[in-house]
Amino acid sequence: MKILVVGASGTIGKAVVNELQGDDAEIVQASRNSSEVKVDITSTESIQKMFEEVGKIDALVCATGAAHFGLVEEMTPEQNLVSVNSKLLGQINLVLLGLEYIRDKGSITLTTGILMDDPLVRAASSAMANGGVRAFVKSAAIELPRGIRINSVSPNIVEESIDKYGSLFVGAEPVKSKSVALAFKKSILGAQTGQSYNVY
Amino acid sequence: MKILVVGASGTIGKAVVNELQGDDAEIVQASRNSSEVKVDITSTESIQKMFEEVGKIDALVCATGAAHFGLVEEMTPEQNLVSVNSKLLGQINLVLLGLEYIRDKGSITLTTGILMDDPLVRAASSAMANGGVRAFVKSAAIELPRGIRINSVSPNIVEESIDKYGSLFVGAEPVKSKSVALAFKKSILGAQTGQSYNVY
Ligand SMILES: NC(=O)c1ccc[n+]([C@@H]2O[C@H](COP(=O)([O-])OP(=O)(O)OC[C@H]3O[C@@H](n4cnc5c(N)ncnc54)[C@H](OP(=O)(O)O)[C@@H]3O)[C@@H](O)[C@H]2O)c1
Ligand SMILES: NC(=O)c1ccc[n+]([C@@H]2O[C@H](COP(=O)([O-])OP(=O)(O)OC[C@H]3O[C@@H](n4cnc5c(N)ncnc54)[C@H](OP(=O)(O)O)[C@@H]3O)[C@@H](O)[C@H]2O)c1
Repeated sequence: MKILVVGASGTIGKAVVNELQGDDAEIVQASRNSSEVKVDITSTESIQKMFEEVGKIDALVCATGAAHFGLVEEMTPEQNLVSVNSKLLGQINLVLLGLEYIRDKGSITLTTGILMDDPLVRAASSAMANGGVRAFVKSAAIELPRGIRINSVSPNIVEESIDKYGSLFVGAEPVKSKSVALAFKKSILGAQTGQSYNVY
Repeated sequence: MKILVVGASGTIGKAVVNELQGDDAEIVQASRNSSEVKVDITSTESIQKMFEEVGKIDALVCATGAAHFGLVEEMTPEQNLVSVNSKLLGQINLVLLGLEYIRDKGSITLTTGILMDDPLVRAASSAMANGGVRAFVKSAAIELPRGIRINSVSPNIVEESIDKYGSLFVGAEPVKSKSVALAFKKSILGAQTGQSYNVY
């Protein structure tokens, strides 16, 4: 089984790669700089090039997507585009351009996040991207061809990220990145489709 | 009370205007061609110009937003941008650019749609936009300044639109546009915030 993990060198990505290794899987790791295969999901040309390089796969995993954090009152349309172009369209364009590279009965797993369900101040742009990805996944699932499945994983803040984002996530109880990785594994090796696996 | 209705000449917009009239409200109607005030929500310059022309308001209502309909398997990133630029960002940019024109304790009401919850084939791009708007609204609600509230209304297909969209909405039981208009009224005249009013 050949699994492409985009964002493989990140906090969530590393946990996913770690969880999948040893399961008789060939894992292809991709990101902008820090992985064997280079891709920038904000560019459709770069996504196209990655799929041509990697070829046919059984599972597409995206564990990345940037978002703008800032007050709605101060947010400009341009700032909001960070989340649109990366977390929202970066992930959806992986699906649109990658679908033909996914083998019959393969799977797609995208990443959202708790901010769409449990809002925080300064996180509306991120919530928007998360909500858009979740709804796209739910809808795409009923029509993907050749038995291909699609799910998303919505993590709470993970323990490893407390130093980086902890000040934003007031009162949140962090989860283990292992738990998040298991949700990705369930999506990849299970049989469900159209789901949002919440790791809250 | 001064209420700006964007998309006022449409099926939903007309029902909203009709419902609000007589309630001692000054209603300003806007759309690209068929209303007194001209605006194209896909252009931030056009949105900016509209707010400068209309001035201070008590309620911002958006009853418009276009989306691309087509199979995920055949969808290009460019086609998906129709939904992003109109239904998703058109509405969110109305909020970002309009916030300063809304009086203290004013309100914002946006439009989503049932396709995010009850998916149909060919509607994933629309679902994406709906889900993004709903999540943005939920998150923005906890931080909008000066007591300004924000909600969204998610209509099922309305009776008047059966001829236009009925072939897509197989097995759907259409709702009255009056019911949808009442949900907008509840958002504008009520006290709740961060809600998605589903008219299903
Ligand atoms: N960490 C958490 O607690 C948490 C909680 C909820 C949701 N999430 C979501 O999970 C996702 C991953 O978060 P994370 O904390 O693991 O991020 P991270 O540690 O910052 O890692 C990001 C990964 O993505 C790659 N990357 C960044 N931008 C990219 C782009 N434009 N194209 C391709 N690859 C790119 C990075 O490598 P390069 O720099 O080499 O590209 C890296 O591999 C994000 O969408 C985040 O919102 C995280
Ligand atoms: N009708 C339904 O059954 C139904 C069900 C669920 C959700 N919805 C959602 O409700 C919203 C309105 O639907 P509808 O059926 O009432 O639409 P509609 O009858 O086609 O009317 C659209 C309205 O918006 C204006 N408009 C279109 N594009 C615009 C733009 N870029 N900038 C500013 N104004 C624009 C139109 O006037 P101009 O042409 O003059 O601009 C018109 O006033 C849509 O987002 C739709 O997805 C509708």
